[in-house]
Amino acid sequence: MNENNIEKIKNSIRAIQDFPKKGILFRDITTALKDKEILKIMIDEIYEQFKDEKIDYIAGIESRGFIFGMPLAYKLNVGFIPIRKPKKLPAEVISQEYELEYGTDKIEIHKDALKQDDRVLIVDDLLATGGTAKAAYTLIKKVANPVGFAFVIELTDLKGKDKLPKDIKTVCLTQY
Amino acid sequence: MNENNIEKIKNSIRAIQDFPKKGILFRDITTALKDKEILKIMIDEIYEQFKDEKIDYIAGIESRGFIFGMPLAYKLNVGFIPIRKPKKLPAEVISQEYELEYGTDKIEIHKDALKQDDRVLIVDDLLATGGTAKAAYTLIKKVANPVGFAFVIELTDLKGKDKLPKDIKTVCLTQY
Repeated sequence: MNENNIEKIKNSIRAIQDFPKKGILFRDITTALKDKEILKIMIDEIYEQFKDEKIDYIAGIESRGFIFGMPLAYKLNVGFIPIRKPKKLPAEVISQEYELEYGTDKIEIHKDALKQDDRVLIVDDLLATGGTAKAAYTLIKKVANPVGFAFVIELTDLKGKDKLPKDIKTVCLTQY
Repeated sequence: MNENNIEKIKNSIRAIQDFPKKGILFRDITTALKDKEILKIMIDEIYEQFKDEKIDYIAGIESRGFIFGMPLAYKLNVGFIPIRKPKKLPAEVISQEYELEYGTDKIEIHKDALKQDDRVLIVDDLLATGGTAKAAYTLIKKVANPVGFAFVIELTDLKGKDKLPKDIKTVCLTQY
């Protein structure tokens, strides 16, 4: 990765105290997205990391994974699969539950979205505890072949990477 | 627009009966997105329509507007502004209410996202009754200059176009 670019990305992500609740320092990507230079280098840096990998689909996790996943799919010239919250997808789905701080949540893809040998890169904006990313991996694994993860931000204290399989490529553009 | 491309896009969008509720024929874009050729021509056809316009930002309406808005922002080399549902944006927001079949809903952008002369193209997947699109226009208009709309699908029976201002460019790739 180009260190100068990574520094620019990092400087453009705004920190917001106490969102969504007291005590949490939220990393706000909207300030990076509205800067056309930063928007371009975020996509290009991820693209560079995966352009020589064999990838058939990008799967983006609702909803900020759509933001980074789609331009990447466009640039890699592969298809895009939305990983969505329950009741959003209209056809038959497969789903995967995962634990939240209190209770559980679920993500879904269409049952006919992927075939067994399809190689899928999973994209989201943020790797925090890794709960959602791990669920996305397990979900894709049920029907196809997850071959990588790409995130713009990694919150290293939360050790999300420890939850992810070690044998596939995981790229995080910035660390906090 | 390239009629052959438009026909391909139209053929790749799946119709699902009775979603999200009985009596509604849902137009499912996931089958278009997973086809890399169709994904590319959807973005390229919208790009062709706006590449000679003066645009500073794409504003994409959560969440399927993110899907089409971001690759377009990347390709036009402009910034991206997410128009989000309440409580999603971390900093100070401005918001706009709009009517639903029963009750009201609200969309928001960050108060500091745009400046007065910024020229903004509003993007969503679908133009139905036009309620959300009109609200997005009113919202952007409060702080900047909305100069166009782009949609992949127009449901012509619902006459959404009648709700939108006539003096700005509105592009809908396909009609049902």
